Amino acid sequence: MTRFDFTISATDGPARTGVIRMARGEIRTPAFMPVGTAATVKAVKPADVRAAGADIILGNTYHLMLRPGAERVARLGGLHRFMGWDRPILTDSGGYQVMSLSELTKVTEEGVAFRSHLDGTRHLLSPERSIEVQRLLGSDIVMQFDQLVPTTAPREQQAAAMERSVRWARRSREEFDRGGAHADRAALFGIQQGALDERLRKESADALIDIGFDGYAVGGLAVGEGQEAMLGCLDFAPAQLPADRPRYLMGVGKPDDIVGAVQRGIDMFDCVLPTRSGRTGQAFTADGPLNLRNARFSEDREPIEPGCPCPACSTFERAYVHHLVKSGEMLGAMLMTEHNLWFYQRLMKGLREAIAEQSLAAFAGEFVTRYRSSPSRSDGDRSA
Amino acid sequence: MTRFDFTISATDGPARTGVIRMARGEIRTPAFMPVGTAATVKAVKPADVRAAGADIILGNTYHLMLRPGAERVARLGGLHRFMGWDRPILTDSGGYQVMSLSELTKVTEEGVAFRSHLDGTRHLLSPERSIEVQRLLGSDIVMQFDQLVPTTAPREQQAAAMERSVRWARRSREEFDRGGAHADRAALFGIQQGALDERLRKESADALIDIGFDGYAVGGLAVGEGQEAMLGCLDFAPAQLPADRPRYLMGVGKPDDIVGAVQRGIDMFDCVLPTRSGRTGQAFTADGPLNLRNARFSEDREPIEPGCPCPACSTFERAYVHHLVKSGEMLGAMLMTEHNLWFYQRLMKGLREAIAEQSLAAFAGEFVTRYRSSPSRSDGDRSA
Repeated sequence: MTRFDFTISATDGPARTGVIRMARGEIRTPAFMPVGTAATVKAVKPADVRAAGADIILGNTYHLMLRPGAERVARLGGLHRFMGWDRPILTDSGGYQVMSLSELTKVTEEGVAFRSHLDGTRHLLSPERSIEVQRLLGSDIVMQFDQLVPTTAPREQQAAAMERSVRWARRSREEFDRGGAHADRAALFGIQQGALDERLRKESADALIDIGFDGYAVGGLAVGEGQEAMLGCLDFAPAQLPADRPRYLMGVGKPDDIVGAVQRGIDMFDCVLPTRSGRTGQAFTADGPLNLRNARFSEDREPIEPGCPCPACSTFERAYVHHLVKSGEMLGAMLMTEHNLWFYQRLMKGLREAIAEQSLAAFAGEFVTRYRSSPSRSDGDRSA
Repeated sequence: MTRFDFTISATDGPARTGVIRMARGEIRTPAFMPVGTAATVKAVKPADVRAAGADIILGNTYHLMLRPGAERVARLGGLHRFMGWDRPILTDSGGYQVMSLSELTKVTEEGVAFRSHLDGTRHLLSPERSIEVQRLLGSDIVMQFDQLVPTTAPREQQAAAMERSVRWARRSREEFDRGGAHADRAALFGIQQGALDERLRKESADALIDIGFDGYAVGGLAVGEGQEAMLGCLDFAPAQLPADRPRYLMGVGKPDDIVGAVQRGIDMFDCVLPTRSGRTGQAFTADGPLNLRNARFSEDREPIEPGCPCPACSTFERAYVHHLVKSGEMLGAMLMTEHNLWFYQRLMKGLREAIAEQSLAAFAGEFVTRYRSSPSRSDGDRSA
């Protein structure tokens, strides 16, 4: 059984394409992971997530530990069995959500004490508990527990959070390695911190490499710093991480963010945009995002995206989807989400093929020019 | 091209089984029509409605004329093309919803003037406009426009409404026959009124037969009179209608209502119960309804209904569906609705087979005894 193997088959500048092999299946990189927060990629059946081309999905430790509860999921045979997805699942550490969603958080060296946003019950997330929860869920790719601060925080705070994240990375590694059968099957990723500061990023990377991980995430980005600052950071951060390990940019992003990040050497992504946008009527297309709520679509007989091979575009017209979205019908969210998942997976496929053909610059240039210059962008309906 | 042909292949007492043949496909009877109010069977893709076994669905004239509008649907190629359902569609006349949903209604001999519940705009539904709307939608089975009064209204009101409904039936017939190509392809059903009164029902039936329709609905039931009163009416009402024409019980109903009505000679049904219940966490099973929100399902590893071959039951456990429903996840509504549609279609198949085998009494007795006596009924979660 292959626990975790990353083979790079081609490179094009800093960009790489390859395959991660794990017991539950292969992950073609660059890969986009749809987000299945509460044990469901919202509004889509697991078989349709797979049909869209996803090799791996993401589950949220924070949400799942609160509802239905990690111990319950374990008693029910693990997250894969529970939600009907038999391919790899990456779980985050809960570190991001505990700061953004929970109440009355208190951060100490031990971890983060908080109250559930659902029912006010008290919980502690520490490196040990985070890894334990991810083990109970049966995660394939486990993320270390880390501490986040805004990119706008003072440098001393950034440095302190990065250093604490390194200490938590070591505790995460130790707890993961105590995991027995789970450790024999799953992989553990470290998370580089250091905000937009090249030296802090380098210190973080070196310390994580010293501990040793199967893959490395670039953390702390896509939190409001803007695309230019994010890509600026990606001009140096990925190169600080081992070339032979997958690099994962957490929480990113918009299609043009992903293209820019792949050009800078990122291999894995996750983001709620395709699913969340699908529920609010925004469709992704090669000509930029479309807000299907707009009255100009009320008698538009084109599919959501002309030429798209997805089930929604193969059967239905924009006029119908517009009607569904305007009427608040669940089928609208279902069709839009499915299309958006296909769009993201087709983009990843295009990126992989372009890298294999050493034509990424041309692909990226054409994609971004068309995506950003479309008249549809004048709607101002591009998601933040 | 067969416009409308009803062939009865077997009878068992008053019950019949057979096939309605129309240009867009065959309808096996007794048939249950899932309700697609606003051009969608809520939370289910059309292909999955078909996979559940549905030969025909119902569309609501009132909802569709207000949004997206009948003229718009016509410009977009008709309701079938619009919503991606290429088999028969029956449309109601709007008479029921205009009284239950709209505001400031005014009923005259001409028709019903009302304000839209969506935006307050003024509209008129008359026999002529109702038939025109159904023609614009491209309906396969068109319902006459009728007037409803509560079953508790005084007999004079019942008689007056029944007589007006007969006059509106004639106007509906005349307008339908002016429909050209649509009239050559579609069928028109009359609606028997007369509340629970056998003589009024007989007068209504005789007058409708004199006008002549492709099929006949038993109208004005399932409006709160209770199962006993409804079945009591069905002890005489269907027999007053032509034996060689389909009989359609509008808005019914619970599984045991359907069984009792089939035993009394009804061929067609529609009801929002399987879809609406699916969105509120109620599953139909042969052992009675289950409320999947109940905490006792939180670690239940059975499928929604053991033995059910539907896609939801083939993949997921009650514990997962419970989690989805409790978490307000759309996938919960999707899976529950799909299961409920399969349950209803499997019930209809069982009824058809039992009639064909002359064993309806045994089938119905076993079904109703098991359905009503289940411990799950003690939840008090049976839908009204």
